[in-house]
Amino acid sequence: MTFKFKNVYINETSTVVGPYESAGPLGKYFDFYYKDLYFGEKNWEQAEVKLVCEAIDRLTLKGNFSIDGDIGFIGGDLLNQIVVSNYAMSNFNNSFIGIYAACSTATLGLILGASLIDSGYMKKVITFTSSHNTAAEKQYRYPVEYGGPKPKSTTFTATGAAAALLTGNTSTIKLESGTLGVVIDSKVKDVFNMGAVMAKAAADTIVKHLRDTGRDIDYYDLVLTGDLGVYGKKILKEYMLSEYNIKLKNYNDTGVMLYDRESQPVYAGASGPACAPLVTYGYIFDKMRKSKYKKVLLAATGALMSPTMVNHKLSIPAICHAVSLEAIS
Amino acid sequence: MTFKFKNVYINETSTVVGPYESAGPLGKYFDFYYKDLYFGEKNWEQAEVKLVCEAIDRLTLKGNFSIDGDIGFIGGDLLNQIVVSNYAMSNFNNSFIGIYAACSTATLGLILGASLIDSGYMKKVITFTSSHNTAAEKQYRYPVEYGGPKPKSTTFTATGAAAALLTGNTSTIKLESGTLGVVIDSKVKDVFNMGAVMAKAAADTIVKHLRDTGRDIDYYDLVLTGDLGVYGKKILKEYMLSEYNIKLKNYNDTGVMLYDRESQPVYAGASGPACAPLVTYGYIFDKMRKSKYKKVLLAATGALMSPTMVNHKLSIPAICHAVSLEAIS
Repeated sequence: MTFKFKNVYINETSTVVGPYESAGPLGKYFDFYYKDLYFGEKNWEQAEVKLVCEAIDRLTLKGNFSIDGDIGFIGGDLLNQIVVSNYAMSNFNNSFIGIYAACSTATLGLILGASLIDSGYMKKVITFTSSHNTAAEKQYRYPVEYGGPKPKSTTFTATGAAAALLTGNTSTIKLESGTLGVVIDSKVKDVFNMGAVMAKAAADTIVKHLRDTGRDIDYYDLVLTGDLGVYGKKILKEYMLSEYNIKLKNYNDTGVMLYDRESQPVYAGASGPACAPLVTYGYIFDKMRKSKYKKVLLAATGALMSPTMVNHKLSIPAICHAVSLEAIS
Repeated sequence: MTFKFKNVYINETSTVVGPYESAGPLGKYFDFYYKDLYFGEKNWEQAEVKLVCEAIDRLTLKGNFSIDGDIGFIGGDLLNQIVVSNYAMSNFNNSFIGIYAACSTATLGLILGASLIDSGYMKKVITFTSSHNTAAEKQYRYPVEYGGPKPKSTTFTATGAAAALLTGNTSTIKLESGTLGVVIDSKVKDVFNMGAVMAKAAADTIVKHLRDTGRDIDYYDLVLTGDLGVYGKKILKEYMLSEYNIKLKNYNDTGVMLYDRESQPVYAGASGPACAPLVTYGYIFDKMRKSKYKKVLLAATGALMSPTMVNHKLSIPAICHAVSLEAIS
């Protein structure tokens, strides 16, 4: 299902990251970074809450606006009960729509926000998401201190928060349309291979987006998935060609871009809800403003993995929500 | 933030419950019930997935329609990663918006769905939610087999799923407006007293709804919260009077209505995302169609409780989303 937006712009963005992201190849594109994973807090969950609040704070500073009653928030994260988003929101007296779409949260938030802006229900939307490496490891896998080795197909949850301000006022980045994804179960049960879990969901949403808009894949200067990692990226390319006869040429994956896999211990690349918006808001928007890219399709993918269902030996479903972004000169 | 809807109707609803809800005073108003908590499945999580699929199936049968590409789904539940909703959705090739708002999920889904219908982005929306007593106990508290005693202020998570079809086509129940809530932290840390956690959030949203619509509380034939339970209901009534000088007269709480507290082991009443829509779609809509109520404000409340944050000794925030429902004769 694809929504076309008449007048929705991303007026401002902010990105706050941890030490690994800051030390990666895109480090200089982020607004702020912390040197450790605690950010002055007592535990990783509260550290992630601080990241979100910091991102919102920097968004208002960068955009020179204050949080007034016209602003509605849409957000979500990876922790149970989207607890980071909820606790961050308890600091604001603003309407809040809590969403869960794992690592595709950013694009779901952008689509919902754009719908509410374009239809006039909201004047200003701030949509945000976050993830925190050790908070996610603690919840989904083993305590980091356990030191268990992992297969190469594992991805490394990014630590960071990203926020975007959407309004109907013209800006350099236009949110042109969005395609809401479908839950796809590829029957993959390997919790260490999220790329394989999510690749078909990415393909499904990209193909539906092209069908709904009547576009060819080459309409976009860049197709960006996030976060399939190196192996998922390869699977998607092969699957798109064999199943749909679509060749992904101008294509990259935010999970592959965030870190330097040669020098950082990130296995197949980055993951986490923060990954796609960090790379997009930080690095890609800079290139769009510099006219390197005019039209970008961001297809963020989420593995809807639940340890409970993994314990029941069930396969892991996935979803992908995509947004079409245009540079306005 | 209150959205006014021009033409959004709840065309059909369905309710599926477990044995406790069926045996309660509203039992005869539900479409279907199961005699145990497994529903033929191997575990409680998959049992809850079955409840959701069953509710959607019965919705299509009652409404005499099939799930075509025009239908978008909006849903969420109480389990980590809204796993029930995600796994249920893997059975459909339809766009899915996953939301998390704990026990206020139903009204958040109705508001988002109505926004997307009224603005023309979607033609048909199915919004659903569910909860399962023992699945929730296992995740949030102790295994039921542990048999730990509980304080009287505890609520009993309802087992059930409820689904609603929204379109722009006139029907007997109109979704007139909706107010998106704010996250409120009342500094309550008691996980066995969710009524106290949520009462202020309910008050805040009800007051903002009245302010935004310019209405008096008596505009509504019935104000319905869900699910504060007997103690939370008392707190809300006292707080509305002392803080806002508003007397809740035509008022009830879905958590108080679902069970018979005298004969059933439900402590302060029902809770869970299913509670508010089960009571509303089953019982209240029947009374609205029979002209007992013309205008109803349903203010569903959610305790955004996370065991992780409770372990960090943090207080529990809450949210309330409200919808204004009108009987059309």
